[in-house]
Amino acid sequence: MNAETVRVNLGPRSYDIVITSDQLAGVGAFARQRNRGGLAVVVADENVRAHAEAVQGSLNAAGFRAELAVLPSGEATKSLATIAQLWDRLADLHADRQTLVVAVGGGVIGDAAGFAASTFNRGLPLLMVPTTLLSMVDSSVGGKVGINHPKAKNLIGAFHQPVGVWIDTATLATMAEREFRSGLAEVVKYGVILDPEFFAYQEANAERILAREPAAIRHIVARSCRLKADVVEKDEREESGLRAVLNYGHTFAHAFETAAGYGRWLHGEAVAAGMVCASRLAECQQLVPADLTERQRRLLHCFQLPVAPEPWPIDGLLATMRSDKKSVAGQLRFILPRRLGEVALFDNCREDDVRGVLQELAGG
Amino acid sequence: MNAETVRVNLGPRSYDIVITSDQLAGVGAFARQRNRGGLAVVVADENVRAHAEAVQGSLNAAGFRAELAVLPSGEATKSLATIAQLWDRLADLHADRQTLVVAVGGGVIGDAAGFAASTFNRGLPLLMVPTTLLSMVDSSVGGKVGINHPKAKNLIGAFHQPVGVWIDTATLATMAEREFRSGLAEVVKYGVILDPEFFAYQEANAERILAREPAAIRHIVARSCRLKADVVEKDEREESGLRAVLNYGHTFAHAFETAAGYGRWLHGEAVAAGMVCASRLAECQQLVPADLTERQRRLLHCFQLPVAPEPWPIDGLLATMRSDKKSVAGQLRFILPRRLGEVALFDNCREDDVRGVLQELAGG
Repeated sequence: MNAETVRVNLGPRSYDIVITSDQLAGVGAFARQRNRGGLAVVVADENVRAHAEAVQGSLNAAGFRAELAVLPSGEATKSLATIAQLWDRLADLHADRQTLVVAVGGGVIGDAAGFAASTFNRGLPLLMVPTTLLSMVDSSVGGKVGINHPKAKNLIGAFHQPVGVWIDTATLATMAEREFRSGLAEVVKYGVILDPEFFAYQEANAERILAREPAAIRHIVARSCRLKADVVEKDEREESGLRAVLNYGHTFAHAFETAAGYGRWLHGEAVAAGMVCASRLAECQQLVPADLTERQRRLLHCFQLPVAPEPWPIDGLLATMRSDKKSVAGQLRFILPRRLGEVALFDNCREDDVRGVLQELAGG
Repeated sequence: MNAETVRVNLGPRSYDIVITSDQLAGVGAFARQRNRGGLAVVVADENVRAHAEAVQGSLNAAGFRAELAVLPSGEATKSLATIAQLWDRLADLHADRQTLVVAVGGGVIGDAAGFAASTFNRGLPLLMVPTTLLSMVDSSVGGKVGINHPKAKNLIGAFHQPVGVWIDTATLATMAEREFRSGLAEVVKYGVILDPEFFAYQEANAERILAREPAAIRHIVARSCRLKADVVEKDEREESGLRAVLNYGHTFAHAFETAAGYGRWLHGEAVAAGMVCASRLAECQQLVPADLTERQRRLLHCFQLPVAPEPWPIDGLLATMRSDKKSVAGQLRFILPRRLGEVALFDNCREDDVRGVLQELAGG
């Protein structure tokens, strides 16, 4: 079997991420090694019902009694109503502290099922089976689970590390092209912020990646998980500020997503344009040469991702950036590159520079 | 100032419990030493509004902006509706990760406010100000927070250790006599399960305790917290089974509470009768001499607590005990004494012995 394993080292909460291409057949045995319980509850959205049934079959073959809970797809599922529904289902099934919750799907399912698991009986074991590129490289590591509140996304939640993550690149085969490319933006991000060699690998293997060649996908997923794990291991609960480097491109991206209107730009698309803006802003501050921005722009363009914002009103973008939940006292704070593979937090950016970058790029 | 401090050692989650009698004046400074935030949200029930306002004043004097959230008193407050209401309030107040949640009241408020704190923004700092004897000696230590589900009490929750606990015995002055005595049952329990000297102290000082003499109350609260902390420090998340010793008397007690009908027997009253039953059962199994049961009976009687169940139908009691959430496969499991200060789990108790104890005591 072609598989890679990434170990996330968090003391007693350490766990393995296995990245394979075996059509989900191995997930039952992987789960059994980590859980001695009788009952497993597979939570999935309706788009991945076939994958969820494959997982259910594999769990049953490994000796679990696997039940299936299918939720509507979409961001609205990250709600209190969903959590209450999952709690009811777990109570009806007489779930106990050993009951394994298995989240099969993208970030929405991982977040919602993970939050239900973290709060039922003061914490049930959670196994994650991410089926989108974004959730493979992002939600697999970090233990963040939660739901949205009418006042803010992800406002209600917990840190709840899984007992394991099973990634099967075969699940990407049916993923829509635009969603897949959006996930690549976060992969590019890991190269820029932490690993020049990984960035160069993506430049050299862009076609294999776009063709979703299993070996190339396994490599970019494993490397992304390893890089994120290196950060999370040093700042598990977002206390030291170190995890902030993962937000490269995200201050701009949140403003673009808001300006575009809910759901019109995918998250990764906004992150792609946001990284180009951040890199250009770093140029203005004499932090990096123009070549660094150009390499990112070329790779993102090659991945058919946007490399500039639309001509949205700049005052509105600035207002959103100042009210970002990571902003302090209305300052403009950005994660900017110092060189390929290294970024830092800058909280004294001049508004004129930010305005200039947005004007130049949106007009270009 | 007459104060005792109990340190709960849980690595990075360690915290202090201060036991004082200073009319809540010191809580603001205590909070400030543990939290640098600007906003504090005091959650209380309507019965302790005066105490909550004293806490609010002390917090304001220490430089916090302290807001008050008053909830209805009673077990029904431990609901999802309450949590959603607290989340809304925190969101309206723009609570951030430094916002201090301060729970002022008994177990219901500590559990509900604590659960809201544990899930907002993935965990807000929590300060507990228990105002009933039971919550001082029980909920102050252990980090259990949560709400009830229609199918089971405390089914939804988390482990969320507070940043500190401030106990002021002056808050007990207005406590109803029956509630106060009910709390004493748990104090007696700590002596029986862990500390013969503490049991003897209670025998020798019963009148001072019943008169709520501050020095005596501070001693029994501090000693109870220390003894519970010794157990919790070795089994923080109830994984090793060690925490089970804290359930001495509780298998019987839950059956008595259920048989009596919701709320007719207070929890501590049921625990008192349950401890006598458990000790008598240990006698039947030749574990302890009759004198051990007699000493407990005398002390509990002196505290005006029930020392026998009512003549409820025994088949119903047995059925409840077999379906206890700590029971496995319908076995009758009890924590029984081996000698004063030492208990152990016995999961092979004969139904005839249990039946005999219930018949004898209810008829006596």
